Amino acid sequence: MSDSSGAPPVAPPVARTVLQQCLRATLQVKPAEQLSEAEFVQIDRGMVIYVCFFKGATDDILPKMVSTLLNLRLCESDSGKMLSVLDLPGSLLIVPQATLGGKAKGKGMQYHNNIGKEDGLRLYSSFVSLCEKELMTAAAAAAEAEVTVKHGTYGNRQVLKLDTNGPYTHLMEF
Amino acid sequence: MSDSSGAPPVAPPVARTVLQQCLRATLQVKPAEQLSEAEFVQIDRGMVIYVCFFKGATDDILPKMVSTLLNLRLCESDSGKMLSVLDLPGSLLIVPQATLGGKAKGKGMQYHNNIGKEDGLRLYSSFVSLCEKELMTAAAAAAEAEVTVKHGTYGNRQVLKLDTNGPYTHLMEF
Repeated sequence: MSDSSGAPPVAPPVARTVLQQCLRATLQVKPAEQLSEAEFVQIDRGMVIYVCFFKGATDDILPKMVSTLLNLRLCESDSGKMLSVLDLPGSLLIVPQATLGGKAKGKGMQYHNNIGKEDGLRLYSSFVSLCEKELMTAAAAAAEAEVTVKHGTYGNRQVLKLDTNGPYTHLMEF
Repeated sequence: MSDSSGAPPVAPPVARTVLQQCLRATLQVKPAEQLSEAEFVQIDRGMVIYVCFFKGATDDILPKMVSTLLNLRLCESDSGKMLSVLDLPGSLLIVPQATLGGKAKGKGMQYHNNIGKEDGLRLYSSFVSLCEKELMTAAAAAAEAEVTVKHGTYGNRQVLKLDTNGPYTHLMEF
């Protein structure tokens, strides 16, 4: 993000995430085919993470990313207090979202800064695994069996339904 | 946004928007009270614009913002071609979203860079009016009577339901 503080320029981000809290979110993970219906995953209360990796992203950033996103107070408790998804505790729906890397050129969008498909898939899979590990550890500690991590299929169309009590949309770059 | 091209540093953005295309979106514009039910607005196919103004934003940026957002190819046609919301043509749901200005400090989020409430309301209202004007002109030209601009109430909780065929989430800063 831009910085007008006079500090030395910060390295460009290698990952962009958009966060929205939800009451329920449903995502298609397999489109309908001739002989099979579409498949969906669903979470109830928690947070949707849209994620896009840029060129230059490596596994090194993942632990900090996951720790930051899961511990930041981005969700609202029943009493109106801001809590992290781990403290809520809530579920996670992780949505690969290559469009987040778009830059306008004329009337079109370009995605030249996005990471290649193979590296992107690997980072995305590791990101999901790390989120699962962190959330499950927190849920076990809170004796909260209901929380879960669901995620979209990398490279597919992300058919999404979202029901919120106010999405509280946040942007976080890493 | 960050720039690693060696070009001179760009001024920090004064507005941040997140765009999601939708099949249907419903937003509460008046919460339920003792004697009245909650009120909602709804659009069918089109684009949701989450918008946040930062300190230093003035009316000067609005025409470019609106023209860019409404003419950029951020939506998908039935045939899978990327089109602008004006070309689709689709409807707009504009959602004031102060959380988009958040910066992490420790585990909390701070919103110190957000514009003051009075200026924010004025810019938001003008932004909505300009969007209405541009969309209605385009709709008239296309003889498309079905498109509409709906928007949330500035300062309220933005209770939102979203139904997509893939949100194609984009970030645009101005």
